[in-house]
Amino acid sequence: MTATSTQHHNETRIVADPGLPTIVITREFEAPPARVFRAYTDPDLVRRWLGPRRLEIRIERYDARTDGSYRFVHVDRDGTEYGFRGVFHEVRPVDRIVQTFSYEGFPDGVSLETAAFEDLGGRTRVTTTSVMASIEARDAMIASGMETGLRESYERLDELLTETTSDESSTG
Amino acid sequence: MTATSTQHHNETRIVADPGLPTIVITREFEAPPARVFRAYTDPDLVRRWLGPRRLEIRIERYDARTDGSYRFVHVDRDGTEYGFRGVFHEVRPVDRIVQTFSYEGFPDGVSLETAAFEDLGGRTRVTTTSVMASIEARDAMIASGMETGLRESYERLDELLTETTSDESSTG
Repeated sequence: MTATSTQHHNETRIVADPGLPTIVITREFEAPPARVFRAYTDPDLVRRWLGPRRLEIRIERYDARTDGSYRFVHVDRDGTEYGFRGVFHEVRPVDRIVQTFSYEGFPDGVSLETAAFEDLGGRTRVTTTSVMASIEARDAMIASGMETGLRESYERLDELLTETTSDESSTG
Repeated sequence: MTATSTQHHNETRIVADPGLPTIVITREFEAPPARVFRAYTDPDLVRRWLGPRRLEIRIERYDARTDGSYRFVHVDRDGTEYGFRGVFHEVRPVDRIVQTFSYEGFPDGVSLETAAFEDLGGRTRVTTTSVMASIEARDAMIASGMETGLRESYERLDELLTETTSDESSTG
């Protein structure tokens, strides 16, 4: 409602409705949807931003197309590995990605995640809705510390999008 | 709590919690988990029970394994086709199937479905939990008439399991 509110459009907004087993995450990026979508679907770009900086990522498979699947491993400094996997229900360029997600250490905690890419005129708003089978499962996801990792991932994505802006303007 | 309650163990129980975007369906079958699980994963068996009797089914793909996908079409008597599709997040014999599901006429209404197979000592209880992104989406699924189709599907599955009991006892 004030002039200064526009300074915060790159804030990560996380809403966990107390009455619904969902997490709704909103974030804006300084790049058009095509470029943000590519950063979500090209494994060579995904590996550069997904997860907190302190973890290495090893992408075993990232077949980001409708009916495809993915698996990646985060590796801690002491060598501990954390595997994550899922399937892509739909990858619809440059509009929407619907996928499942689970941590292999707790394989029964599966979430369904929808990322919607909205064109703000050269900028992009990504709204990610995760839904789980129960409010307890949702609360466990929040308690796992996802929020810190998520904010850091998005900062890394900001950096990547800044880099690829110059890359792409020279080649295309 | 009464002696007669056991006469109703093959009833289909459908619970749609007013406060959660879920549908929980419970049904018991007169066959052990391995046989019920096979009826859920072998496309030659799936085609014999999935859907109401008045519709023909054409299974385009039914790759019921972890990271697999499926698509089938129900065909009405006037030739109208209704396509359904999704991906298998996990197929864990003979315990659990987690898959996505959507009707192609409304591709954004995706649900995450978990079928759990519980051994009751020669009989099997299947509990299917469907979760959607909103209570409105869940209510639309209920309003689509899923309940009639579901009860009829399970009756057809009862019949199939009776048939395969004699088949399997002669071969295995």
